[in-house]
Amino acid sequence: MCIEYLSHYKFHALNRLVERCDGNKGACIIIPLLAWLAINCVLVFIGSAIVTFAEPQAAGSGIPQIKCYLNGVKIPGLLTLRALVAKVVGVILSVSGGLSCGKEGPMIHSGAIVAAGISQGRSRVCNLDFKIFESLRSDTEKRDFVSGGAAAGVSAAFGAPVGGVLFSLEEGASFWNQSLTWRIVFASMVATFTVNVLLSALHGHPADLSNPGLISFGKFQNSSYQVIEIPIFLLMAVFGGMLGALFNQLNGKLTVFRKRYVTSNWAKVTEAVVVAATSAVIGFILIYTVDDCVPTPEEGDYEGHSQAGCADGEHNVMSSLFFKTPEQCLIAVLHSKPGSFTVLSLALFAFLYFILGCWTYGLSVSSGVFIPALLTGAAWGRLVGMAVMSLFPQMGYDYGAHSKLTQGNDIGKYALMGAASQLGGIVRMTISLTVILIECTGDITFGLPMVMVLITAKWVGDFFNTGLYDLHIQMMGIPLLPWEPPELSYDIQAKQVMNTPVLTLQLRETVQNVYNLLVNAPQLHSGFPVVAVADEPLKEGEYGRCKGLILRSQLCFLLNNKIFLDDSAQGSTPLKLKDFRDVYRPNISCLDVKLTEEERTMFIDLEPFMNPAPYTVPLVSSPLHSASGK
Amino acid sequence: MCIEYLSHYKFHALNRLVERCDGNKGACIIIPLLAWLAINCVLVFIGSAIVTFAEPQAAGSGIPQIKCYLNGVKIPGLLTLRALVAKVVGVILSVSGGLSCGKEGPMIHSGAIVAAGISQGRSRVCNLDFKIFESLRSDTEKRDFVSGGAAAGVSAAFGAPVGGVLFSLEEGASFWNQSLTWRIVFASMVATFTVNVLLSALHGHPADLSNPGLISFGKFQNSSYQVIEIPIFLLMAVFGGMLGALFNQLNGKLTVFRKRYVTSNWAKVTEAVVVAATSAVIGFILIYTVDDCVPTPEEGDYEGHSQAGCADGEHNVMSSLFFKTPEQCLIAVLHSKPGSFTVLSLALFAFLYFILGCWTYGLSVSSGVFIPALLTGAAWGRLVGMAVMSLFPQMGYDYGAHSKLTQGNDIGKYALMGAASQLGGIVRMTISLTVILIECTGDITFGLPMVMVLITAKWVGDFFNTGLYDLHIQMMGIPLLPWEPPELSYDIQAKQVMNTPVLTLQLRETVQNVYNLLVNAPQLHSGFPVVAVADEPLKEGEYGRCKGLILRSQLCFLLNNKIFLDDSAQGSTPLKLKDFRDVYRPNISCLDVKLTEEERTMFIDLEPFMNPAPYTVPLVSSPLHSASGK
Repeated sequence: MCIEYLSHYKFHALNRLVERCDGNKGACIIIPLLAWLAINCVLVFIGSAIVTFAEPQAAGSGIPQIKCYLNGVKIPGLLTLRALVAKVVGVILSVSGGLSCGKEGPMIHSGAIVAAGISQGRSRVCNLDFKIFESLRSDTEKRDFVSGGAAAGVSAAFGAPVGGVLFSLEEGASFWNQSLTWRIVFASMVATFTVNVLLSALHGHPADLSNPGLISFGKFQNSSYQVIEIPIFLLMAVFGGMLGALFNQLNGKLTVFRKRYVTSNWAKVTEAVVVAATSAVIGFILIYTVDDCVPTPEEGDYEGHSQAGCADGEHNVMSSLFFKTPEQCLIAVLHSKPGSFTVLSLALFAFLYFILGCWTYGLSVSSGVFIPALLTGAAWGRLVGMAVMSLFPQMGYDYGAHSKLTQGNDIGKYALMGAASQLGGIVRMTISLTVILIECTGDITFGLPMVMVLITAKWVGDFFNTGLYDLHIQMMGIPLLPWEPPELSYDIQAKQVMNTPVLTLQLRETVQNVYNLLVNAPQLHSGFPVVAVADEPLKEGEYGRCKGLILRSQLCFLLNNKIFLDDSAQGSTPLKLKDFRDVYRPNISCLDVKLTEEERTMFIDLEPFMNPAPYTVPLVSSPLHSASGK
Repeated sequence: MCIEYLSHYKFHALNRLVERCDGNKGACIIIPLLAWLAINCVLVFIGSAIVTFAEPQAAGSGIPQIKCYLNGVKIPGLLTLRALVAKVVGVILSVSGGLSCGKEGPMIHSGAIVAAGISQGRSRVCNLDFKIFESLRSDTEKRDFVSGGAAAGVSAAFGAPVGGVLFSLEEGASFWNQSLTWRIVFASMVATFTVNVLLSALHGHPADLSNPGLISFGKFQNSSYQVIEIPIFLLMAVFGGMLGALFNQLNGKLTVFRKRYVTSNWAKVTEAVVVAATSAVIGFILIYTVDDCVPTPEEGDYEGHSQAGCADGEHNVMSSLFFKTPEQCLIAVLHSKPGSFTVLSLALFAFLYFILGCWTYGLSVSSGVFIPALLTGAAWGRLVGMAVMSLFPQMGYDYGAHSKLTQGNDIGKYALMGAASQLGGIVRMTISLTVILIECTGDITFGLPMVMVLITAKWVGDFFNTGLYDLHIQMMGIPLLPWEPPELSYDIQAKQVMNTPVLTLQLRETVQNVYNLLVNAPQLHSGFPVVAVADEPLKEGEYGRCKGLILRSQLCFLLNNKIFLDDSAQGSTPLKLKDFRDVYRPNISCLDVKLTEEERTMFIDLEPFMNPAPYTVPLVSSPLHSASGK
């Protein structure tokens, strides 16, 4: 709603400035340009500054980071209240500031942060602890909550509850947990419902439930297709896959460049402002130099074309594309009647949105890639539709009762397939994206061609490089394990990649030994195997039988609280699970604990604290075994 | 198509017999009754006999068995060509024979069999080996194929490619395998497409693609709903959940009864014929005793009401319900205009279809439970709709542009929710069922209330008992591990449930020892740990270090082929993986192998053949650990 209102005021003010200049096309035209530039640059400057200085993890869409988190990689700062504020305020400003980006990716990250916060019932930044949901503070529960939050974010963004669930499962869960799935379904459902009620109420129809998500592809009045159209869709998918691969390649190079040269915070903010200024100038130049006033179709059409600089009864195509929020622009491209846009303007629009979208993703602003991808694809898809229309003008009229197609719907269909191809070629998400797009379309009929288009686009794209999110995960240097082991690594065994010598602890260990271990292996290992050593001497490379696993944080807790065995008090001290949960932090330190000489010679009994059934792998395990044993 | 044509001829012939009697309601009426009885009984007799005598695994819907297979439990006969023939022919005859069952469940089983057959490239029944796809004969590959086949079956049955994929994932996969998911998506897509093209061509519109699946809920002309209707839907879901639990409870008791008293094959066939006769007689009695001729709505209505026994311009409600294939009947209940059915006839229909459906499921015929559940639910859901209409006649007219509802659509909406509640209450499937029903409806708008209804129905049903499929899995005595460990078992450790003493083999074992092990543990264990024993004597309950796992079939292969170590030929004999694959059968025997005295003293080297990295669990593992470590 913020973006909608901000954009509305912005375009309203700009339109008035433009109208004042109507008639004299001279120097006067410079005023709206400067106003546009100024507004966009200020908005993006604030948005970028918030993200860059407050919480850099709020940059981008957040989807790669959430994917990493759900797969077990902790990223500091990702799920904090500060990141939430930076994300939400940042995305409002960057979308309103006219960058080629959407608000859908950030919604997913925001949903995940909210969910993580609820599960913890406290905030470290605010130093608040509500003392609620303490039983949900474990790592597992938090991760489950984040799955649900991400799913709810997708649901809210796209009005796609099933797609949201699939997103969380596809990106996050490697184990299909049925009860978790149910909870995620419920969360997604409530999210869609809430968005629907709130938006419907804000639009004045509280009981109407007509706004399932933030973005909608609008209603296709006639959504049938014919067998002969499928090859065309597939060719579009091939093209979209190649364009997507090109997008990722360019963005990858750009990211490398940024990592090397755009390193200081101010440089990042400056780059964002430069992109904002360029976007505004390009839009302005296109509107006023490309001569593309076309007659506005008379009735039943999408309303909202802009007259800027054109005669009455006509509208300026470029202005109709640029003087809008991206979501409105997408609906215009999908649903305007044939003849609303010229070939030149659509081609230029697609090309520039491709370039701008590629340049924008990876800026230090809160931004999503869905919308620019969909817009680019819809624009060139509509071009394909126009070409098909003019080559086969009779298509869609000859097939009896089911084919009362109007030309307009035909074109929208091609725009939709183009959008799907382009997005599929860039993000390479699979079944979840299919369902999300189907739910956005609100019509199951396009399901089949959509699946085919997405599969094809992914195959073509994967032939060249990886998906955009995986690319950025690699660039960020996050050690996320992919689905398949790398080629040529199938016969590498566990013993070849593991570090030696193994740092082990015995079931009863002296305080001194434990302390030395923690000091000598600082930050390297967060857990140590606990072994029972037999009586006979161990051979080289043998460490006794594995009895359990103890975490660094648990050892630190034992040291800090001096839970040692001495002669006076045999047996383990009663401890609550809660004590451990509170100390379960990755960065807990105990290297400055004061230990007396006497204490150093005492023993610690690790048996009551260790995990007695950790997951173990034989020395000779290799991807070959896990592949055949799946 | 077979069912459609058979039913068409059947009802056509019966209608002519009925028309001949028009006017004189006396003894003449007995002729069509007898004809109906005879036709149904003969069809069901043949269908039941095929299933009972040829392949009992083809009985029922096959969904419980497929679920078990996908979760790793082998069921002999389940995936054979004989089961496929019995299933397909059986379901055609039982549905055409007027039993209260559908063809959708059997489609899933059929899809799975086809897929399994393709992966094997041979048939044991026909003694054919096409020598193709030999690399796909491993157990893992076969299971992946069956996942895809089941998904394709769902897709073909319901025109629901996404729902099919989710079905396979939800029921089968405990591990989310991304590349497998893609393949399943592709298989489902092709299945839907093929059905669509074939059915469209058979109906005379080859390029039209208007028949995505075997069953469709038809098109809802106006599919919006209002917030105030959601509580009504939820109340219906509660009712549906309770009815579903009742259905399962009754069917469970019936299954116990059948297991005890209906044991001989002829008894099973007789029971099926009795049910067929009862169904026919009940239908006939209802048509001719319930006086429910109502005026046929004039235009735009569903066409296909039956006039039987009524004046011109009127139609017999009961006859409109019973003189149809179940799918046509479902569309009639969902889409007929208000006033097409009387309260009495709908109530009687719902009650009797509930009873007949419950009686039918578990008969020794090939039959699915989806259709009777949907029909029962649609009938009482329509009743609820009629009640709401008469209580709040203005509902749906006051909400502006989005609510141009006709009363007919309103009633259809309630029928749809009733059908969803009833089905959800019986089968308790979760996200896949939601997507399947949404795809059947062809409209995403009902997604949200559908999810809410299905969740509620599942919760209410689960309060009383388990889902129908899980119930039958328990009844069949199949050792399928549920998602959650049973209550009170959370602290049971692995060592408490495992058998002792453990039968182990050493890395090099004498032939005599191996033979003795296989003889003494016949059929009990299909795999044995291979251990390395240290030099010192082992204590009670210790077995040396686990080095790998060897399968009974591998040991048998070694014995049968006499791959022993002797002094003349040290080192392992070169063997191909294919040799092992061909002998990988659960029931391979080698207890009758002839061994000379000299051979018995030879050694077998197990190391090259064993799996060196089997999955192991520590002795103290318990559900508690796996729950916290998930």
